This record gives sequence, structure tokens and C-alpha cells, in this order.
Amino acid sequence: MYPEKFEDLIISLRRLPGVGQKTAERYAYAIMGWDENIQKGLQEALKGLKDIHNCPVCGNMTDQKICSICEDENRDSSLICVVQNTKDLAAIEQIQTYNGLYHVLNGLINIKKGILPDHLNIQGLEDRLTDQTKEIILALDPSIEGETTSLYIEKLLKDKVKVTRLAYGIPVGGQLDYADPRTLTKAMEGRR
Amino acid sequence: MYPEKFEDLIISLRRLPGVGQKTAERYAYAIMGWDENIQKGLQEALKGLKDIHNCPVCGNMTDQKICSICEDENRDSSLICVVQNTKDLAAIEQIQTYNGLYHVLNGLINIKKGILPDHLNIQGLEDRLTDQTKEIILALDPSIEGETTSLYIEKLLKDKVKVTRLAYGIPVGGQLDYADPRTLTKAMEGRR
Repeated sequence: MYPEKFEDLIISLRRLPGVGQKTAERYAYAIMGWDENIQKGLQEALKGLKDIHNCPVCGNMTDQKICSICEDENRDSSLICVVQNTKDLAAIEQIQTYNGLYHVLNGLINIKKGILPDHLNIQGLEDRLTDQTKEIILALDPSIEGETTSLYIEKLLKDKVKVTRLAYGIPVGGQLDYADPRTLTKAMEGRR
Repeated sequence: MYPEKFEDLIISLRRLPGVGQKTAERYAYAIMGWDENIQKGLQEALKGLKDIHNCPVCGNMTDQKICSICEDENRDSSLICVVQNTKDLAAIEQIQTYNGLYHVLNGLINIKKGILPDHLNIQGLEDRLTDQTKEIILALDPSIEGETTSLYIEKLLKDKVKVTRLAYGIPVGGQLDYADPRTLTKAMEGRR
């Protein structure tokens, strides 16, 4: 009933999380109504995604050789904040109070789902420790998986470097990237 | 903080109706996680949108010269159903009981917003009437704008062809006490 390319667009949009037929149609009509250069902008952004990969140092998303945070000489390289994913990294960056480096695990240990330490970017964290590294801040979700992963990393590194955690200030059972900036700031200050 | 193309993608997605920063980020991460050929599919669909235009006969969306409904010889060309937009056309097509043709106005008369009959595809409707045309069915929203537009078209065409409207009433499966007063009034008037 719809032109083929329009139908294709709806099918593509239905793959987005939480988007059903009605919403996909609404989005498709909206995109149809966009100026051509705005449609082009979305096309170009999609085309550019293939250049994005994980930073070999910290695991953050980047389209450069090394990510902009690892590359930044003004950041305090004695601190490494461990996060589950780049979404959480982005949430911490937004509060603009943390000036150290990051380490992105790209997941959490989940025995039930078969996600073991070897599947995560944990070895990379141990490997990048130097004499300069003074503190590892664990900023993982306060969930069972986050707790398990935190305990694992603590055990692995506690003899080599000081390991702290974000203070509880983050609602227990909540998702880190949904925490408001003040809660995140408090949690950062009260790390232990 | 995000790679530039990823940030561009978020900015594009925020233009979708009802999508804010958090949702746009969630969509962008989801798209990042798609297989490359699925990402390509979305790109191709977007690229194809520029071939979509209004059918010169009825105003429906098409990527062909004439839309698939106007082209279909099995449809009853004595009936023309007038709709506001292709979304409403799609809704009627989905019920699979109407087998006539359509005419898409691409809007409704709205004096306040300065949308006058000349801005809509109304002249095109008058122009396509032939001796074959037996009935014009007005299927416009039961709003002030829909009402205004229906009255305008009725006045314009009533001497040339039979003009009918969709019946108003209580939605099937709906609860009478949830029907708004105007619907109830219409349902009472249209009793049979």
C-alpha cells in the first residue's frame, strides 16, 4: 500500500527499541516531511557509523585512533573510572566534575547469561595500570551484575592500586545513566 | 564527548516527534548495535525517499508515475473516498472493505492557520470527476477543520455528484459512558 521505500523505512524504524508499527509510521511520515538536507544529514551520520570503534586504550567509542579523552593531556591520568558502557561514561562526563580517565568494560559479569570476566574489557584494565595510576574508581550499576563485577575487579586489583566505588547516592536498583547530575556529583564526591 | 558522527545521529533522531535526548541516545546506541546490512537498509530507504512524490491523479504517495491504487483496474472507479492525508488512506486500506479510489487533500481547511481551499488538493478532485463517478465519500476528521472542509466540498460538488460522509457514532467495542458529548449527539442523530 505504501511505496516500497517508505515501507522499508517503516520496517527499519520498527527495529528501534520500544517502537511498534504506529510509532514507526509516525516517524517515517516525519522524516518524509524533513528538508532534503536534514534527511541527508541522517544518511551521512549513518554512513559514518562504520568508522566508529572502541578506543584500544580505554574501550570508549571513537572515530579516531585513540579516543578524545585518552588523547587529552589535561586530564588526570592517575585516576581511572571504570564504567559499564559509553552511555554511563557520557553521563559522568556531563556532570563536568570528573577529570580523570575512563575504562569501559562493555558489559557486566552475568553468570546466568554466560557473560564471564574474559568476555569483558577487564584484562585491558589490568594491563594499562602504571606507576602513575593512583586510583581505580568503580562506577558500575548498583545491581547484582554491577556488584559482582565490582567485587571481581576489587579482588583482582586491590594489591596493586587503590580501588574505590561510587558512594550510594545512586538509587539502588536504578540505572546509572538515568541518575540526575546532582546525585551523580554526590556519588562521585563520596566515593570510598 | 561522543564521536562526531554519533553525535550527528543523536541530533538527527531528536528531530523525530516526541523524541528527546535520552530516547535519541537510546536509539543511536541501538542503531550502532545493528548489523551493517541492517544499517545499510535504513540508509537505502532514506535515499529512496526522494523518489516518492504525490500521485498526480489522487495525491497519494507513490514512487511510480501513478500510484498503485489509481493504477489498479480491479478497483471500483465510480467511488472516490476523500481523505486528509495518506495516513488516513492507509487506515482505510487496512480494513480491506473499501474497493474504490481515493483523493488525498494533503490537509484541511484551517482559517486560523491561513490554510484555504486553494492550498489543498480540492480543485484536483473537481477536475477528475467524470460521468463514471457516482459517489464522493468524505472521510475527514470529525474536527472543526474536517467539518469545514467537508461542508466546502459538499457545496462545491453536490450539484454534480452524490456526496456522502462516514457515519459518526460510538466506536465498536467502546463504552457508551466514555463517548464524548459530541459523539453521543451524532450517534443519537444518526440512529437507524
